[in-house]
Amino acid sequence: MGSLHSFTFGLKCNIVRKKSSMFQYICQPAACFLLTFFFWRLSDGGKVLVIPMDGSHWLSIQPVMERLQHRGHQVVAVVPDVNLWMKPSEHYIVKTFAVPYSTEYLKTELQKLGHKIFVQQPFLTRITETFARIRNITMLYLNNCKQLLYNKDLITYLQESRFNVVFMDPVSPCGQIVAEYLSIPSLFYLRGIPCGLDFEATKCPNPHSYIPKFYTGSTDYMTFNQRVKNFLVGSFQFMMCYFIYSPFETLIKEFLHRDMTVLELYSQASIWLLRYDFVFEYPRPIMPNMVFIGGINCARENPLTQEFESILNKSGEDGIVVFSLGSMISEIPIEKAMEIAEGLGTIPQTVLWRYTGEAPVNLANNTKLFNWLPQNDLLAHPKTRAFITHAGSHGIYEGICHGVPMVLIPLFGDQADNAVRIESRGAGVKLDAIKMTSKDLSNALRTVIYDKRYKENIQHLSALHLDRPIEPLDLAVHWIEFVMKHKGAPHLRPAAYDLNWIQYYSIDVIASLLAAAFFFLFISVKGCLFCCKKCFCKSARLSKKNKSKSQ
Amino acid sequence: MGSLHSFTFGLKCNIVRKKSSMFQYICQPAACFLLTFFFWRLSDGGKVLVIPMDGSHWLSIQPVMERLQHRGHQVVAVVPDVNLWMKPSEHYIVKTFAVPYSTEYLKTELQKLGHKIFVQQPFLTRITETFARIRNITMLYLNNCKQLLYNKDLITYLQESRFNVVFMDPVSPCGQIVAEYLSIPSLFYLRGIPCGLDFEATKCPNPHSYIPKFYTGSTDYMTFNQRVKNFLVGSFQFMMCYFIYSPFETLIKEFLHRDMTVLELYSQASIWLLRYDFVFEYPRPIMPNMVFIGGINCARENPLTQEFESILNKSGEDGIVVFSLGSMISEIPIEKAMEIAEGLGTIPQTVLWRYTGEAPVNLANNTKLFNWLPQNDLLAHPKTRAFITHAGSHGIYEGICHGVPMVLIPLFGDQADNAVRIESRGAGVKLDAIKMTSKDLSNALRTVIYDKRYKENIQHLSALHLDRPIEPLDLAVHWIEFVMKHKGAPHLRPAAYDLNWIQYYSIDVIASLLAAAFFFLFISVKGCLFCCKKCFCKSARLSKKNKSKSQ
Repeated sequence: MGSLHSFTFGLKCNIVRKKSSMFQYICQPAACFLLTFFFWRLSDGGKVLVIPMDGSHWLSIQPVMERLQHRGHQVVAVVPDVNLWMKPSEHYIVKTFAVPYSTEYLKTELQKLGHKIFVQQPFLTRITETFARIRNITMLYLNNCKQLLYNKDLITYLQESRFNVVFMDPVSPCGQIVAEYLSIPSLFYLRGIPCGLDFEATKCPNPHSYIPKFYTGSTDYMTFNQRVKNFLVGSFQFMMCYFIYSPFETLIKEFLHRDMTVLELYSQASIWLLRYDFVFEYPRPIMPNMVFIGGINCARENPLTQEFESILNKSGEDGIVVFSLGSMISEIPIEKAMEIAEGLGTIPQTVLWRYTGEAPVNLANNTKLFNWLPQNDLLAHPKTRAFITHAGSHGIYEGICHGVPMVLIPLFGDQADNAVRIESRGAGVKLDAIKMTSKDLSNALRTVIYDKRYKENIQHLSALHLDRPIEPLDLAVHWIEFVMKHKGAPHLRPAAYDLNWIQYYSIDVIASLLAAAFFFLFISVKGCLFCCKKCFCKSARLSKKNKSKSQ
Repeated sequence: MGSLHSFTFGLKCNIVRKKSSMFQYICQPAACFLLTFFFWRLSDGGKVLVIPMDGSHWLSIQPVMERLQHRGHQVVAVVPDVNLWMKPSEHYIVKTFAVPYSTEYLKTELQKLGHKIFVQQPFLTRITETFARIRNITMLYLNNCKQLLYNKDLITYLQESRFNVVFMDPVSPCGQIVAEYLSIPSLFYLRGIPCGLDFEATKCPNPHSYIPKFYTGSTDYMTFNQRVKNFLVGSFQFMMCYFIYSPFETLIKEFLHRDMTVLELYSQASIWLLRYDFVFEYPRPIMPNMVFIGGINCARENPLTQEFESILNKSGEDGIVVFSLGSMISEIPIEKAMEIAEGLGTIPQTVLWRYTGEAPVNLANNTKLFNWLPQNDLLAHPKTRAFITHAGSHGIYEGICHGVPMVLIPLFGDQADNAVRIESRGAGVKLDAIKMTSKDLSNALRTVIYDKRYKENIQHLSALHLDRPIEPLDLAVHWIEFVMKHKGAPHLRPAAYDLNWIQYYSIDVIASLLAAAFFFLFISVKGCLFCCKKCFCKSARLSKKNKSKSQ
């Protein structure tokens, strides 16, 4: 760790706190800055092992890795040698492990997640196909994990490197298996685990009555029928966890030589860095080891290229609309693309559409296609009037950060729930990807652009979101350094971990108290009956005696 | 509000966030500082109405009021004209209302709380007397509240002043009644409400199985018997709330012309600023509108006077011990004082004892009596070896901040629970105020001073406590400004408020599902029976027919 104690100056400057009040109020920020500036470069820093996931997850973890390096830490990311985005950089070392498939295979598998999204299918077929796709991805992650764990050179390197912390994306439990193997503390970086494993693993209460579960499409205000649905989904979501994570349990047993469920494995995390903010998520019970860093992905803004600047300037007073369906979907069936193109052509704004497929023949003059868009930078521009999005959480936070009303076309996963959250706050309009017509799209765009309430609502959310005591990136880095410095955060671990469910819900206590109450009731009733009987018999005997006497 | 939007620069500097990454990493702190420095004086600021409580509560709310004034806000505290500590200052305006009692009466009533603390009494007598004292204090608060609310001039002044926020101590609900009357948002500033009203009012789950209730003296790891006790206390603590707060409900009805319970009144608070830190409190479920500012009271350090500096210098390598039983207890029975003096005389350290009673005749040379001690400043001195405290939460946080092991002599209220928390972390030794002998005190002091583990444990707690991304005072001020700027924090209000308890616990859903399950079971069984009967009858008829045929 070297002089790990010194790198904390940057955020805390405790030494300055010990001065007089005048100094504290006026000179503290300046002294903090100077100390930060001089000390963070002098520090040896710690060693951070990152086990990330691909796609948008990688894009959002990258700024944290860069900031860690800036603060003097050595950052090593372990990734499969075949991947989409996870490439080396000057800010971190990338260690790869071999996987037995090609980039083409990976792309096909990931794109299958968005496959047939725009095709009307019977409910059961859609469910079966979705589960099959999830299973495929799970098996891909499992095999990747095996390749990592049984790569002797890599494991030897990890052992010898003496990392201080594992910073990981818990979509796959692989990082936590490595953390357990190396006996080092870990931090999770996530938005949520769809089957509720995050709340199970943190012992966080999760009432079914007002916390909408993933995939229910409900808000926090539910009708009775929605509450029934939510209760059923909440009660049986452990089956989905089993479906996704049970294949890893054999690997855990094999590799760690321990009987450990994935839930127990996840319970070992020191801190859960959640990409959560309550302007987007519904308020709910939380735990002290949850740290909320929602909006971390929209801090980094770069200047727009000349090409985009020119389009924005030409758009005039009408401004532009940004349209992207995320990193997984860049092509859609040509009929649907034509429907969309027709809708986009009806508005006066210039539309910048991230689309790599065949250009629809009816593409209007106001619509421009791009293989890639600097989404966050475009949304930050004051001329951006609306954002058409698939409602992935990253894009939504970018929309919130920059106060851009949204047209939401959820495709799969948590996107339908995300869309409901934004719609329920009056900051966007949700469309059905399959059923929507060009008119629906046109109406939705006109609504969010010209009905002032949408702009006002998203700007209100944006103001609340940005009014925070510390930037999410600083917060994330603080907690990573905290875990490195203090070797975890056991003081934030609730005693609930050492209770079984009977004890946790006080069922044994209630049963004992009820038994005691019944016992005393029984004794009391018996006692009363005995007394009554005695009295009754005595009075009966007496009246009999009196009767016999009178006779 | 004037230019309220500008005073947020100090903490957030969002404008700087919009620059390039180089600027972001290097110049941000400097720019932040400069902007803060120039803007906070230019701002008109907001208007903060403070409704505080007397005693140590006032001492801990004062730094927040001062900081608010430093940040350009106008701070007005409304206090009774007879009080112990709440005096005017250059940092805030103090508005008083007349109360029909003298300072002597107030002192006597408050000192009664600590009355007979050192006298052995039968359990029932102690309980009855304690309840009588609590009732007296409650009636005092109620009468104060009436004097405030029915003081026409004061209420007219409050109405005309157009405050942006009420910042209050919720030991008495008076501040929230004023907030409701003026229709302005409020923030609560507290350690906790003894009968659990804080968790009820925030809809925060409060499992009886591992969250020790006040006055149980348990840790978060409980035996079965302790869990039974905790369950019973947790289940019936609403009676204590009723006992303390029901007298206010008539006043609420009279003054606000609304039928509102104190629980409903407390549910209106926007933010709960809790003097909580999980190095001291046990980890537990929390809610998003709870902000943790434990240790806020130990930030302000002043240089020691020459008198104290000289004592510290003379103490040599042995150092000093700081001894205070808090602001409520400064005198104790002479026999107990002599017992304590004897114990203190057995250690080589110099003891600084806050004690206003008659000096014990056996006072040793190493013990010096003072009417008042600069407790926090003394604890901050590296020569302080131990802290003898009544285990009030303020003192404990000061001990934690400065890493001083403690001898805990809890007297009343939450102090026994506080003492258990520190003892369970191996950072102090707890003594029984009534039963302790001079030898017990001497042994306890020697243990915490010479057994290195106590110093190591408290220093570990101190390191964890001080390693925070933002200072508690900055955090408190941020949230007060947040509530002023956004007129509350409704986005942090869970939907649970709009559910009754049957809905909250999904009892209606479970009952409906069970009814449906029983109905289907019943129909299925009936159907099966009907089919069996049919089949049986048919086969019986057939066999009869066959039989008759064969005959």
